[in-house]
Amino acid sequence: MSKTTEPARPEARLPKGLSDISAGEIRATEEMLGTIRRVFESYGFEPLDTPAIEYSDALGKFLPDQDRPNEGVFSFKDDDGEWLSLRYDLTAPLARYVAENYQRLPKPFRRYQVGPVWRNEKPGPGRYRQFTQFDADTVGASSVAADAELCMLAADTLEALGIPRGQYVVKVNNRKILDGVLERAGITSKQQQLAVLRAIDKFDRLGIKGVEALLGKGRKDESGDFTKGAELTKNQADSVYVYLDSGNLPSGSAEDQIAHLEGTFAQGEVGQSGIRELSQISDLIAAGGYADRVRIDASVVRGLEYYTGPVFEAELLAPIKDERGQPIRLGSVVSGGRYDGLVERLTGEKVPATGISIGVSRLLFGLQRLGKLKESATRGPVVVLVLDRDRIADYQTMVQQLRSAGIRAELYLGDGGLKAQMKYADRRGSPCVVIQGGDEKAKGAIQIKDLVLGATLAASQNRDAYLKKQEKAQALVPEAKLVETVRAILARHKS
Amino acid sequence: MSKTTEPARPEARLPKGLSDISAGEIRATEEMLGTIRRVFESYGFEPLDTPAIEYSDALGKFLPDQDRPNEGVFSFKDDDGEWLSLRYDLTAPLARYVAENYQRLPKPFRRYQVGPVWRNEKPGPGRYRQFTQFDADTVGASSVAADAELCMLAADTLEALGIPRGQYVVKVNNRKILDGVLERAGITSKQQQLAVLRAIDKFDRLGIKGVEALLGKGRKDESGDFTKGAELTKNQADSVYVYLDSGNLPSGSAEDQIAHLEGTFAQGEVGQSGIRELSQISDLIAAGGYADRVRIDASVVRGLEYYTGPVFEAELLAPIKDERGQPIRLGSVVSGGRYDGLVERLTGEKVPATGISIGVSRLLFGLQRLGKLKESATRGPVVVLVLDRDRIADYQTMVQQLRSAGIRAELYLGDGGLKAQMKYADRRGSPCVVIQGGDEKAKGAIQIKDLVLGATLAASQNRDAYLKKQEKAQALVPEAKLVETVRAILARHKS
Repeated sequence: MSKTTEPARPEARLPKGLSDISAGEIRATEEMLGTIRRVFESYGFEPLDTPAIEYSDALGKFLPDQDRPNEGVFSFKDDDGEWLSLRYDLTAPLARYVAENYQRLPKPFRRYQVGPVWRNEKPGPGRYRQFTQFDADTVGASSVAADAELCMLAADTLEALGIPRGQYVVKVNNRKILDGVLERAGITSKQQQLAVLRAIDKFDRLGIKGVEALLGKGRKDESGDFTKGAELTKNQADSVYVYLDSGNLPSGSAEDQIAHLEGTFAQGEVGQSGIRELSQISDLIAAGGYADRVRIDASVVRGLEYYTGPVFEAELLAPIKDERGQPIRLGSVVSGGRYDGLVERLTGEKVPATGISIGVSRLLFGLQRLGKLKESATRGPVVVLVLDRDRIADYQTMVQQLRSAGIRAELYLGDGGLKAQMKYADRRGSPCVVIQGGDEKAKGAIQIKDLVLGATLAASQNRDAYLKKQEKAQALVPEAKLVETVRAILARHKS
Repeated sequence: MSKTTEPARPEARLPKGLSDISAGEIRATEEMLGTIRRVFESYGFEPLDTPAIEYSDALGKFLPDQDRPNEGVFSFKDDDGEWLSLRYDLTAPLARYVAENYQRLPKPFRRYQVGPVWRNEKPGPGRYRQFTQFDADTVGASSVAADAELCMLAADTLEALGIPRGQYVVKVNNRKILDGVLERAGITSKQQQLAVLRAIDKFDRLGIKGVEALLGKGRKDESGDFTKGAELTKNQADSVYVYLDSGNLPSGSAEDQIAHLEGTFAQGEVGQSGIRELSQISDLIAAGGYADRVRIDASVVRGLEYYTGPVFEAELLAPIKDERGQPIRLGSVVSGGRYDGLVERLTGEKVPATGISIGVSRLLFGLQRLGKLKESATRGPVVVLVLDRDRIADYQTMVQQLRSAGIRAELYLGDGGLKAQMKYADRRGSPCVVIQGGDEKAKGAIQIKDLVLGATLAASQNRDAYLKKQEKAQALVPEAKLVETVRAILARHKS
C-alpha cells in the first residue's frame, strides 16, 4: 500500500451541467436583458424578485422530467425538518407570492421576473442544471385577451432583439383540445394523461418512433435510462396519432386551421371550448396586426403539467449552426401558457393566470449564432506600468488622474518585469500603457505607448511607413500631459 | 375523529430568513448596482459569473458561524452521491475558478461579481439566508498596493453612491498582528485561534461581556443556543483584552497608530511583518489622498477564517434610524481582506489574492434610511379601459398606438366594471386612462382622464377652480388625437 504524505486536496472543478460565464457573455446578456426589460415594461409589467429557495410543497412538482430520480428538483431539509427546494421555474414561486399577497395586489397583477432556475436533470449539449429565465405573467385575468397579448409581447420582444419579421414564429394552441381527445379516447388516469402529454412534447426531439415507445411500454434512451410508457391500447394510441398529425398540416390561414380543428376535435365540450378560445385569440392577433407572426399549431402542448388552456411557444426560423458548422435544433426560445389552477392549489380560490418565459441562455446563443449581437467589445483599461517598485505611490497617482478624467485605468499589480507587464496589457486589451522609468522621471516626462497602433506595426509595408507609425505609437510627453495624450489615443481608436 | 374531505393544501409562505423583493426596491437596487459596476469597471475589474451550486469540498467551509448545525451552508447530495453546496460567498467560487483556469488568465486577474449567496444561519433583523454581494478581487498580486487599492475602491464607491466624505470610514488592519498576539500567548490550537477570532469579531455586537464568555467557557444567546468558548487561561485572555483595547485608541494620525502598534505588538516576526504591511498600505493611502477616509483600526479582524493578511471594512458614520425612529447599528457595508491560501488549498501552488465584498441589501437599506436614494418613481402605464367587451380588439389597437409612440400602456384585462377599472388604474399609478364607450364611439371620439390632476380635484377651494380643473382633467378628443393628448398629459406631469 502506498502512503501519501499530503492531505487529499479537493479538486477545482464544477459539478456537471453547471458553468462559469465569461465577461463577454455577461456583457452581451446584460444588454439583451435590458432590451427585454424595456419591452416588458412598455406592456405595463412590473418587476418582482423571489428567493431561490422555497418550501417544496409550496412549489409543487410539475416538471416534464418527473420520472427521473429526485424528480427534477434540487431539494434538501431545513433545520426544522421541512423540505426546501431550489425553484425550478419562476411560475410556481409567482403562484406562491400571489397566494400570499392576493388581497393587497392590483388585479390583474402583471409582473416580470428574471433570474436563475435550477433543474436536477440529466445535462446534455445546451441543457444545463442552472439557467436563466425571463418571465412575464398576468394573474387575475380570465380573458384570452391576456393570452393573445403575451403572444404579441413575445413577437415584439424578438423583434426588439433584432430578429426580423419572418425569421421567427409564435405558435399557439390550447391544452383543452388535447384534453378533449384524451377524454374521448378514454385515457382518464392522471398518470396516463401526463405520459401522453410528455410523449407529444418530445415529438420534435424523438420523432414518431420515440413517441410510439412512450405511448406504449416505454423507452430506453442512449444512456440506458428507461422512461415508463403510457401503456395505451392501440385504439387509444391511434387517436393520439391523429392529434399529432393535425400539427403537420400545411399552414393555411387561421380560419382554415380553426375549421380543421373543429372538424376533427369538436365532439366533446372540453375540446369545443378549447377551439373557441383559440379562435378568439386568433381574432385578437389578427386585429393587432400580428397574423403574419403568430400561428395556430396543434402540435404545441408544452411539457409542464400545470397548463390548463392556451399554450404558446416561439422559435427562430433561420437555420442555426454550431461552432463547427453543424446545423442544430435550437428548440423554442419563448414558451408559456395559461395555468388557472396554480394559485387555487394554495388558496382554494380560483385565480386565473397566464404567462410566458424566455430561455435567456438559449436565446442568447441563438442571437450569437445568427450574428445578431454586437460584440460589445469593452476596451481594456489603460495600464500604468511599474518600473521602479519604490515609486508605486507615484504610479498610483497617475492611475487616479486618469480615473478622475473618466478613463478606465489600473496600476500593474503583479511581480513581472517590463516584458511581462507589456504582455499583460496586451492580454487585457489595453488601448495604451503609461511608462515612467528613471530616465523619463529625470526629465519630468512619461512615455505613452499606443498598443492598438503598435499592433499594426509589423504589418507595415516599408521602412518609412514603419518609422512614421512607430513615432506615432510611442509618445514622450511631459507628466502634465498624461490625461490629454491618453485621451487623444482613445479618440484615435474610437470607431 | 373529524374527517376532512378536502386534500391538505400546501400553505403559501416563505421559509424563514427569505423574502420577496418589490418593484420599487428592485429598481433602486438596479440603479445602485449600476453605479457600483461603473466604479469597479473604472478600476479595470472585469465581470465573471459562477453558478450557485458548487462541490462542497471545492468551496470549503470558512464561515464565522461554523459552530451551528449544517455549519452555515446549504448542502445536498448529487445523484452520484457527491456533496453539493449553495455558495456562501463569492470568494470561494472565485478561488475554484482561478484554480481551474489559472494558466489562461491574465495575471494579476481582476474580476468583479455580483449575485446572491446563501447562508444557513439563524435569521434575525437584517440577517437573511439569501442576500446579494458585489465583490471585487485581485488574484495573483502579492503587493499590498493591491490591498490599498481596494480600500480606495471602497471609498470611491461609497462616494459615487452619494455618501459624502466624512460620513463613512474605511478601516484597515492586518490579521498577522493578531496572529502574533496569539502566538506569544501560546494559543496555538487552530480551534482556539478561530474561537478567539470570532469572539473579537463579535465585540461590536456583544460587548466585552459577550467576548469574555466566548474567550472562556462559552456563551448562551437569547434563544438558548450555546456557542462553545475558546477556554483560554486568564493570562491568555488578558493578552486578547490588550489587543482589543488597541482598537479603542483615540484616532491619532496613521503614524501614531503604527507607532503604538509597534510598541505593543512587534515582539514576534509575524506581528512585525503585519505592522510593516499596514505601514506600507498607510503610505499608499496617504499618497493617494485617501488618508482622511481610510483609517488603521486594530479591532477589525473579520470573522471569515480564510484571511491571511490585510483585512478591511467600511461603515457609514451618520446615525441611522429604523422605520420607527429607533437608532440601529447597521454594521459594515463593505468588508474584505487578503486570502493567500485559498487557491493553494486546491492547487498546492501559492497564489496571492485579495478582495472586497459589498453587502448590497444592507448598503441599500442604509442609503434608503439616509435619504440618499432618489425614489425612482417609475410612472405606471396608461390604462385603456374596456367598456364594451366585444370591442377588445379596438381597445387593444389603442394600446398598440400608444406603445408604438414609446408610451408605456396596457389594456385592462380584468372582469371589473368602470369603477373597478378606475380603481385599478389608480393602484397602478397610471397618469391617465383612455375611455371609449358607445357614446364616444358614435362620435368617433375618446375620453382621456388625467388621473394626476383628477386626484387634486377634491382639494380645490372653490367651485370655479374645481370646474376649471375638472374640465382640464377630462378631455373628449377625436380618436386620431389619442397619442397627442396622452403625450400632453405626460408632459404636464413630467417634473
